[in-house]
Amino acid sequence: MTKISQPDLHSLRIVVVNPVAPEGELDEQALAQDERTRALRIGLLEAGYNIIASFPADLHLPERVAQLQPDMIIIDAESDARDVLEHVVMATRNARRPIVLFTEDKAKSSMEAAMAAGVSAYIVAGLQSERIKPVLDVALARFNAEQKLLTELSDTKLKLAERKTIERAKGLLMERHKISEDEAYIKLRRMAMDKNLKLSELAQRVLDIADLLG
Amino acid sequence: MTKISQPDLHSLRIVVVNPVAPEGELDEQALAQDERTRALRIGLLEAGYNIIASFPADLHLPERVAQLQPDMIIIDAESDARDVLEHVVMATRNARRPIVLFTEDKAKSSMEAAMAAGVSAYIVAGLQSERIKPVLDVALARFNAEQKLLTELSDTKLKLAERKTIERAKGLLMERHKISEDEAYIKLRRMAMDKNLKLSELAQRVLDIADLLG
Repeated sequence: MTKISQPDLHSLRIVVVNPVAPEGELDEQALAQDERTRALRIGLLEAGYNIIASFPADLHLPERVAQLQPDMIIIDAESDARDVLEHVVMATRNARRPIVLFTEDKAKSSMEAAMAAGVSAYIVAGLQSERIKPVLDVALARFNAEQKLLTELSDTKLKLAERKTIERAKGLLMERHKISEDEAYIKLRRMAMDKNLKLSELAQRVLDIADLLG
Repeated sequence: MTKISQPDLHSLRIVVVNPVAPEGELDEQALAQDERTRALRIGLLEAGYNIIASFPADLHLPERVAQLQPDMIIIDAESDARDVLEHVVMATRNARRPIVLFTEDKAKSSMEAAMAAGVSAYIVAGLQSERIKPVLDVALARFNAEQKLLTELSDTKLKLAERKTIERAKGLLMERHKISEDEAYIKLRRMAMDKNLKLSELAQRVLDIADLLG
């Protein structure tokens, strides 16, 4: 079997987001950030990644992310990491993506905020380029595992909400028609099938209309 | 204000777990693992951590972890990381703890397995000692964030199960006594209060006994 040179890696489309540069002349901090950014970009390119864009966390961020649909967003922020992260989280709210944060911010509160925001990797003090690939691989695996957990949570919450609705509609029918639970359930299910609705949708309609009719 | 030298860090009680050493004379792999282990221990000590024990992932592992109740478990495994991890996960099943994995295993499948097992940090290719603290801090923050998510998930699942039980008991009462949903609910709640039970526990008893009586 021929070994293929990791096509999945090379096709990973990465966007790098930096802090918004301060206005006016370049100060020391901005120069340090510049140097950092260059080093990270070289490391990513050497490791074989595809940087499709690099831009600051300004007002255009949501639009750019929506347009580019990157596979991963790397935040490179010596300082102001929390601020940049907030913008990136907002921009990916409707379509979560793996977010990797390179920063010098060692504050525990910043780390906690980043974890709560769902950051897939938080790397302090840079990286040698030979370690970039395993770090990003772990970040992807972590993102996928967390997505699974979040999906399970939202599915369970939805089931709970649907069940509440169905049970309330069933109770209403049992009371109005003086029928058993099974009979009420059968009535609901039959009507849902007739209307081509999910049972929970039909139940919600029953409750809405019963409310309306008084 | 005087700066205190991070007492929370120094009081973190860490256990280091290694692969079980192969029997017989020391081979090259065992020697490499030995060298690795020494380097990691020095790094942890230099970073100010408290290594309370270090042992192989053998049959005594669950007992030792239960006795020592460490704040964090570090798996140091050049190879066999998956095997060691499996043992550690089993040993912490009833009381989850942050697990940090230092390994040379770069396989994506190993990373995915580790994420699914809830590993808080997966570090390939070692660490300079000055980076150990932020890595462990991130691992702790990640563990806490994930615990919160897992708690939310299990709470929601429990609520769903309890609601199913309560609704079934309510339906049973409505049917038997030809009463309204509200009346059935009031009956159940009153009895739960009388018996000093949670509503869902009382509901479960109603179902059990109704089943028994036929």
